[in-house]
Amino acid sequence: MRYELYYWPSIQGRGEFVRLALEDAGADYIDVAREPQRVRFGLDKFLADRSLDFPPFAPPFLKAGKVVIGQTANILHYLGPRLNLAPRTETNRRWVHQMQLTVADWVSEAHDVHHPISGGLYYEDQKAAAKRRAADFTASRLPKYLDYFEDLLKYHRHAGDYLLGARVCYVDLSMFQMIEGLRYAFPRAMLRLERRHPRLVGLHDRVAARRRIAAYLASSRRIRFNQEDIFRRYPELDR
Amino acid sequence: MRYELYYWPSIQGRGEFVRLALEDAGADYIDVAREPQRVRFGLDKFLADRSLDFPPFAPPFLKAGKVVIGQTANILHYLGPRLNLAPRTETNRRWVHQMQLTVADWVSEAHDVHHPISGGLYYEDQKAAAKRRAADFTASRLPKYLDYFEDLLKYHRHAGDYLLGARVCYVDLSMFQMIEGLRYAFPRAMLRLERRHPRLVGLHDRVAARRRIAAYLASSRRIRFNQEDIFRRYPELDR
Repeated sequence: MRYELYYWPSIQGRGEFVRLALEDAGADYIDVAREPQRVRFGLDKFLADRSLDFPPFAPPFLKAGKVVIGQTANILHYLGPRLNLAPRTETNRRWVHQMQLTVADWVSEAHDVHHPISGGLYYEDQKAAAKRRAADFTASRLPKYLDYFEDLLKYHRHAGDYLLGARVCYVDLSMFQMIEGLRYAFPRAMLRLERRHPRLVGLHDRVAARRRIAAYLASSRRIRFNQEDIFRRYPELDR
Repeated sequence: MRYELYYWPSIQGRGEFVRLALEDAGADYIDVAREPQRVRFGLDKFLADRSLDFPPFAPPFLKAGKVVIGQTANILHYLGPRLNLAPRTETNRRWVHQMQLTVADWVSEAHDVHHPISGGLYYEDQKAAAKRRAADFTASRLPKYLDYFEDLLKYHRHAGDYLLGARVCYVDLSMFQMIEGLRYAFPRAMLRLERRHPRLVGLHDRVAARRRIAAYLASSRRIRFNQEDIFRRYPELDR
């Protein structure tokens, strides 16, 4: 099966959580909008076609044969077992999906730090509100999410090197991406917070060292962090 | 199976999407925090216990025998087939789940209209930002979501009385709740927008008329909309 990932061509964004799973598994896939000759057949076609069987509300979405799947966590819930990145039982798969949905909430909150009023306005036009939201995010929400996942690595009976034990799941790859993105966006806050979350840092490092992930990160397929993305570095938001 | 729903006792909130499914199915359940003698055994116990097999990040969560399930859409994905409120095939179940995840995004955006800076601050302390966010929400995001689901009812090959055809699914019940909540919070905006979304209004009315839903809505189990909830009526946010 050759998977087709549909996402924006120039940001990591939510698509990156899917890319990391496909890359770690060595899956056969194309990142449609980044294939030069295919750009014009990319997102717009799908988003405008309301007669599809499964029209997505927004990217990313994945084409797998005839099926089109939207919503990042839903895509990963589908791919997990097929890429050998999910546990075996339904109960544990539901639990991994639940963690991924919590990651999704975290991602939205991290994005809204720099766009608290509207995704349709420039950052500069909502900077005052962004500063206030950033202060709350770094003081309250960010530690709350980090504490939760650190505690899962500390107390959960399955936890080991990864969130479900010895074998990596797609949510571990997403956790790497969260740490990586938060370090880019909030280096000062993360420097302070990481000391209290050694297990998450360890998980991040183990994922980064995985053979296919390391190769991916060093490749041109890995888009660099940039100021159009979910994670953005505005020093005034990271006091 | 007697389900136990854990949620706040005095708001509809995200718990309401689960309540509507349990009520429509006539399921055996208790709303734990609303059982007078059980209040002290409610949310706090679970949220503080990091040694659980499946510790939720936040309410609502559902206890089903030994399993604890968090994240609203994940709970409904679990309950759907068990309550006869989901389609039969895996592909269609994934599609219903995908729609529910889009509803979840919509709910978060509707909430953040009155709390764009922080859920930990009073509305009065973020009113200026809320006004700006409300203007964007009612002019741009709200129509975008309504258009998307209206188009699903118009163009999707499965659509009929409900989003997947003749049989109701849990996402239809959630759509009723969205229309109902948005009417409470943004009566002026909805009055204007509903004219262009007749199929959604029809779906809302059909759900409201379902026997068990009608009985539930008329009962004391249905918490009234109030100003601590996700949907809040602040006239200044509904110009």
